[in-house]
Amino acid sequence: MTIREKAAAMKLDSPKMAAQPAQIRNKALAAIAKALEENQDAVFEANEKDLAKAKQNNIPEAVLKRLKFSPQKLEDAIKGINNLIALPDRVHEKLFVRELDEGLTLVKETCPIGVIGVIFEARPDALVQIASLCIKSGNCAILKGGSETKYTNKILFSLIYKAAVASGLPENCLFQAELRDEISELLECHGYVDLIIPRGSNAFVQYIMDNTKIPVMGHADGICHIYVDRNFDIDKAVSIIIDAKTQYTAACNAVETLLVHKDAVDILMPKLNEAFKAHRIELRASRDISEKYDCAVADEEDFATEYLDLIISAKTVKDIDEAVSHINKYGSHHTDCIITEDKDAAEYFMQMVDSAGVYQNCSTRFADGFRYGFGAEVGISTGKIHARGPVGIDGLLTYKYKLYGNGHIVDDYAKGKKEFHFKDIG
Amino acid sequence: MTIREKAAAMKLDSPKMAAQPAQIRNKALAAIAKALEENQDAVFEANEKDLAKAKQNNIPEAVLKRLKFSPQKLEDAIKGINNLIALPDRVHEKLFVRELDEGLTLVKETCPIGVIGVIFEARPDALVQIASLCIKSGNCAILKGGSETKYTNKILFSLIYKAAVASGLPENCLFQAELRDEISELLECHGYVDLIIPRGSNAFVQYIMDNTKIPVMGHADGICHIYVDRNFDIDKAVSIIIDAKTQYTAACNAVETLLVHKDAVDILMPKLNEAFKAHRIELRASRDISEKYDCAVADEEDFATEYLDLIISAKTVKDIDEAVSHINKYGSHHTDCIITEDKDAAEYFMQMVDSAGVYQNCSTRFADGFRYGFGAEVGISTGKIHARGPVGIDGLLTYKYKLYGNGHIVDDYAKGKKEFHFKDIG
Repeated sequence: MTIREKAAAMKLDSPKMAAQPAQIRNKALAAIAKALEENQDAVFEANEKDLAKAKQNNIPEAVLKRLKFSPQKLEDAIKGINNLIALPDRVHEKLFVRELDEGLTLVKETCPIGVIGVIFEARPDALVQIASLCIKSGNCAILKGGSETKYTNKILFSLIYKAAVASGLPENCLFQAELRDEISELLECHGYVDLIIPRGSNAFVQYIMDNTKIPVMGHADGICHIYVDRNFDIDKAVSIIIDAKTQYTAACNAVETLLVHKDAVDILMPKLNEAFKAHRIELRASRDISEKYDCAVADEEDFATEYLDLIISAKTVKDIDEAVSHINKYGSHHTDCIITEDKDAAEYFMQMVDSAGVYQNCSTRFADGFRYGFGAEVGISTGKIHARGPVGIDGLLTYKYKLYGNGHIVDDYAKGKKEFHFKDIG
Repeated sequence: MTIREKAAAMKLDSPKMAAQPAQIRNKALAAIAKALEENQDAVFEANEKDLAKAKQNNIPEAVLKRLKFSPQKLEDAIKGINNLIALPDRVHEKLFVRELDEGLTLVKETCPIGVIGVIFEARPDALVQIASLCIKSGNCAILKGGSETKYTNKILFSLIYKAAVASGLPENCLFQAELRDEISELLECHGYVDLIIPRGSNAFVQYIMDNTKIPVMGHADGICHIYVDRNFDIDKAVSIIIDAKTQYTAACNAVETLLVHKDAVDILMPKLNEAFKAHRIELRASRDISEKYDCAVADEEDFATEYLDLIISAKTVKDIDEAVSHINKYGSHHTDCIITEDKDAAEYFMQMVDSAGVYQNCSTRFADGFRYGFGAEVGISTGKIHARGPVGIDGLLTYKYKLYGNGHIVDDYAKGKKEFHFKDIG
């Protein structure tokens, strides 16, 4: 069966999947958690095969760390599933009930999107998290994970799929694509696949966005900023900047550019520069800073670069408006933070910066579905259409309008025989 | 100034537009209503020029009717603006306020999408409605109307723009594109334009969808169905089907295909066929019906065609599941109706049909922003990502996450020094 044939079959089954009551979807999640727990040895064994192969291929240590499915990660994954089960069901929620006229009632009700294709990096916990979120939200899903976790994904998917179907979910609820060619096939499935969620490098996500007619949700780059305003607390500033740069340097929500109010530079920089040195962070800055602190001069390209490394660019700005303009021009509308004790300045910044996340006095690293209390996330969206920021269950839902009448026709309203009275009743 | 330069300037101004309080946006709408009222003679004069040109070009009567901006249509347009002013403001609405931990508060807040490009058909009232909706929702908009309403649009836009800016909206709040070439330019404005809303023919909308990297919201075709179930009321059925076909035959929410339960055919068809004849509706049906009622046999292509004309295709189905499968396969996920007195059958149909609008016992022609109580609409979306069905103010909004901290860093949570407590407080 080709991916297109499979997607067509899923599309036909997707209303059945959408119709599953919360009880069945939660039962499937519980069965999955149980299957993972009971078969952990087989999972770890498969993961060892992936790790051995990765070591043969001289995969860097940082990537090996992501590939490794440790008992701790499995425990976290199972805890994640249990958190999802505990979350309230959002699938058949009435967003409003409106009487348009006597006997004519409009209900706006949430429903799953349908068939979702998720392409994700080589991280075994990602497969568990994504499959669980799709089940909780009543969506069918085609999953394509990174090839470096081939063996681990194969057994994880098999356990998840069997538990899901045994719990009563439709046969076409989930499908695993295993070959790299299948990504191109998947991108051609418009009409059958309702949404593609790609995760991975900037170039990879951009490629997906440019090569499909299916709507794509996600983010290519993540150039996040921290702006230090004139009225700031230096200890908070240094601690937040260091956390945002070093807590997970390769993450999309790590800070890449620091903007500093001209009146703040001389107070902030001596202490911050010491911290940069202590953490081996390379500073590239505007001329005024580079002259005083003996670092490279940042150019236009620096400000447009997602380093994903222990490098940070910095620039002195004359006021908050210059900071906002810089962020709206060079940023990727992901997550940007102001450090200030001035409430009005914070509100102004958070209003004017056109990003999914706008923060005051905290690390950009908080941009994450788990940390937002969503239970889990399928990804982070920098788009403005549909879900924005970390995407949990809500971002995997759409809605439909149900209209209940009793023989109502439009002609009566067009001719003035009847009139709408629009009364929200729920 | 090219469209791209203009769009870039609008993008920079869009946070200012988004920051306008409801009071200023409503003041602008009131000023627009006043300007239209006071300058109606000049508007009608410009409209006469468009009509004269259209008559010279032998434009069909039905189109002339749309081009004509009658005193009644102007009055309706002004009433529409006043309705919008009266609607509650949705722009800076807090969707939730969640304490993640002590002193760390996440707010999910609605905000405008940013810069929207709307390409619409030659209907002067469309320009007024679209501009008003964009202002009410705090969006900047590039408007491109049909060339047949060139003179009318020019004066309407000029009145609207002057009133908007005089009321305090930013200089780049609205822009009118007047040349056809500018559509291609607009489609190249990704990065500056956040959303394109095309209205018009199937082929035109499909062209737009295929030729831009900007997200597109709208619908190409509208193949709407009415399914008559076994337990139905014949008077409601005939009246609804005739209304859905004839009340505005060229509309996207007119019915194109009728599906009839096998047990309902012999009860429904004699009376319905009489009504079809009386309304000069051509029937193309499955063989069993065509033999009895002397009409053409419908083929696969009929079921995939949006006639937009006094033609209807019909098919006998063996049960509700066959009706659902037919609709999910041939339909365009716009609006589909079941006629039944059986509540369970209605709920099943409305659950399983994968369309933006699912109706029981009423005309598909109700699918419209005004009739849903949205005040107005910028279009109808058959997509599932972002807004679905008639798109009013809500569909022109997105949201951002604001996170207020007090020096919070992620490392404390990663290391277990602190724990999230996730408490919804608003």
